[in-house]
Amino acid sequence: MRAELLARIESLLPTGGDLPELQRYAAMLRDYPQRGGKGLRSELLLGTARAYGVAEGSPEWERALWLAAALELFQNWVLIHDDIEDDSEERRGRPALHRLHGVPLAINAGDALHVYMWMAVRRSGVDQALDEFMAMVLKTAEGQHLDLAWVETREWNLTPEDYLRMVRLKTAYYTVIYPLRLGALAAGREPSAEFEAAGLALGTAFQIRDDVLNLIGDPAKYGKEIGGDLLEGKRTLIVLHWLAGASAQQRTVFLERMNRARTEKNAGQLEELLTWLRESGSVRAAQEFADLEAQRGLAALAQALAGAPNQHATEALLQTMKVLATRDA
Amino acid sequence: MRAELLARIESLLPTGGDLPELQRYAAMLRDYPQRGGKGLRSELLLGTARAYGVAEGSPEWERALWLAAALELFQNWVLIHDDIEDDSEERRGRPALHRLHGVPLAINAGDALHVYMWMAVRRSGVDQALDEFMAMVLKTAEGQHLDLAWVETREWNLTPEDYLRMVRLKTAYYTVIYPLRLGALAAGREPSAEFEAAGLALGTAFQIRDDVLNLIGDPAKYGKEIGGDLLEGKRTLIVLHWLAGASAQQRTVFLERMNRARTEKNAGQLEELLTWLRESGSVRAAQEFADLEAQRGLAALAQALAGAPNQHATEALLQTMKVLATRDA
Repeated sequence: MRAELLARIESLLPTGGDLPELQRYAAMLRDYPQRGGKGLRSELLLGTARAYGVAEGSPEWERALWLAAALELFQNWVLIHDDIEDDSEERRGRPALHRLHGVPLAINAGDALHVYMWMAVRRSGVDQALDEFMAMVLKTAEGQHLDLAWVETREWNLTPEDYLRMVRLKTAYYTVIYPLRLGALAAGREPSAEFEAAGLALGTAFQIRDDVLNLIGDPAKYGKEIGGDLLEGKRTLIVLHWLAGASAQQRTVFLERMNRARTEKNAGQLEELLTWLRESGSVRAAQEFADLEAQRGLAALAQALAGAPNQHATEALLQTMKVLATRDA
Repeated sequence: MRAELLARIESLLPTGGDLPELQRYAAMLRDYPQRGGKGLRSELLLGTARAYGVAEGSPEWERALWLAAALELFQNWVLIHDDIEDDSEERRGRPALHRLHGVPLAINAGDALHVYMWMAVRRSGVDQALDEFMAMVLKTAEGQHLDLAWVETREWNLTPEDYLRMVRLKTAYYTVIYPLRLGALAAGREPSAEFEAAGLALGTAFQIRDDVLNLIGDPAKYGKEIGGDLLEGKRTLIVLHWLAGASAQQRTVFLERMNRARTEKNAGQLEELLTWLRESGSVRAAQEFADLEAQRGLAALAQALAGAPNQHATEALLQTMKVLATRDA
């Protein structure tokens, strides 16, 4: 994320204290933000504000920056909890927070960072943004519940529609729809109703791309462990597509390995599943679906922003969105 | 908690959905609130509002009820996460949420309930209450960090002052100080600066009483497992007092058993530690300290509320507070 957002975030966070343990607490809160995520969502928010005519340095820009900082804080506290929920090993190229400090302290740090998110929203002075953030976090939590529950209950009887429903809730709202809405609000505009359809398509494309990168991405760029979704037992469009076309025997082997608890998974066996998926047409099929979604979403977004005052900034926003849905890392 | 608070909480929460998993999600969010805590903190808030002249049925009472509902939501989401952090077995006489649904789904449910807390605060229409809740949750998280970190790092080199510092942060602010402040705010008053000193003393008395009940309480009334603090390795005033007076040999045995991971603790051996603590003077010493704190806090609170318009309600509030600090369950 951009330096001025990190500076805003850090201005809210505690600096330490007289006890070593309070210093660790402060360091834990700063850890994920300082690892420097790509800041995609905050860029979308700022790009939307610009498209609606907000000039850098204006009071509206200041509002947008605080909302963008809040969005980054959301991303960070959610990732802390998400990494525990999935028992992920890495985040942004370093061990996940709970692997450095244990689960209890990491849950607590996520909760505290959650509060700082509200503080940043409040700082924006955009009163309606409080309700927007509430709706956004709740959509995400509902999607997260589906994602986690399917792993927990070993549910594989799922259609592509089930996957899409989960991913829209879990990813599309906070990755695309709310950044667009919040950018409009910072500019003093009522958010366009068309953002939802556009964002659902673009957010879906974004998540499928993420699922694809998790299987075939460049480890140096990706920041999480390649194949981690298999370790975590994630239901992805790729896996559902592959299962639908697999022989009964392969399907049985695949599910038996995927259904094991993480600690009982065998690395060599997972590597084999990875190869099956990579060598099948399922990665390509999912990517093609994602490309169509991206195209559809971009067209809808272009239409929603057709009347925006700054068309130069609108072009840039559409370009950012395109990169986001088709990125390599 | 009182029925009208639960009704308000339930009016915010999702009712289910078309997927069985979304029904489970809704049920998870309702579970802890429906188990019916004692609602101590919300009673303090409402009692304070009454002391400041708020009449039931007035618009100010409506505000107070929403803030009280928010306080109960805080208590509930924190308990969900707290039970995971401590790996507690029971809550309010039933298995802890993560023992019913697993850690990942329970973390997520706590996060969602956290958002509903903000929704209730927002519903109160008391704008300043947002900042109050932020400060309250952050104090609690800081105290929680200390509590958990000492367990995680096997830190026993602690003074009574360390314990008091932790307990003030972890318990006093959200149990006493903020309920008083929020009750005043609902009544349209600026909270008295004296609430802090009064609440620190009363909150400390409350937590020490809780520590005592954890050792010698009535299992039928207490709602959590008796001796659970030993299983969870908690640093309490009782334990610190006992350690200071124990022989080198007993101390070594005690710490060796307490430092084990929960799953490696031996029930019979813990029962023996429990007996040592119960038979020592440490429970009484801690209770005496708590009684002094309660007395001091009550006097300070009585003074802070001396000019409150409804002295009948003030008396009732002081009585509630007294019960809270000296309760049996």
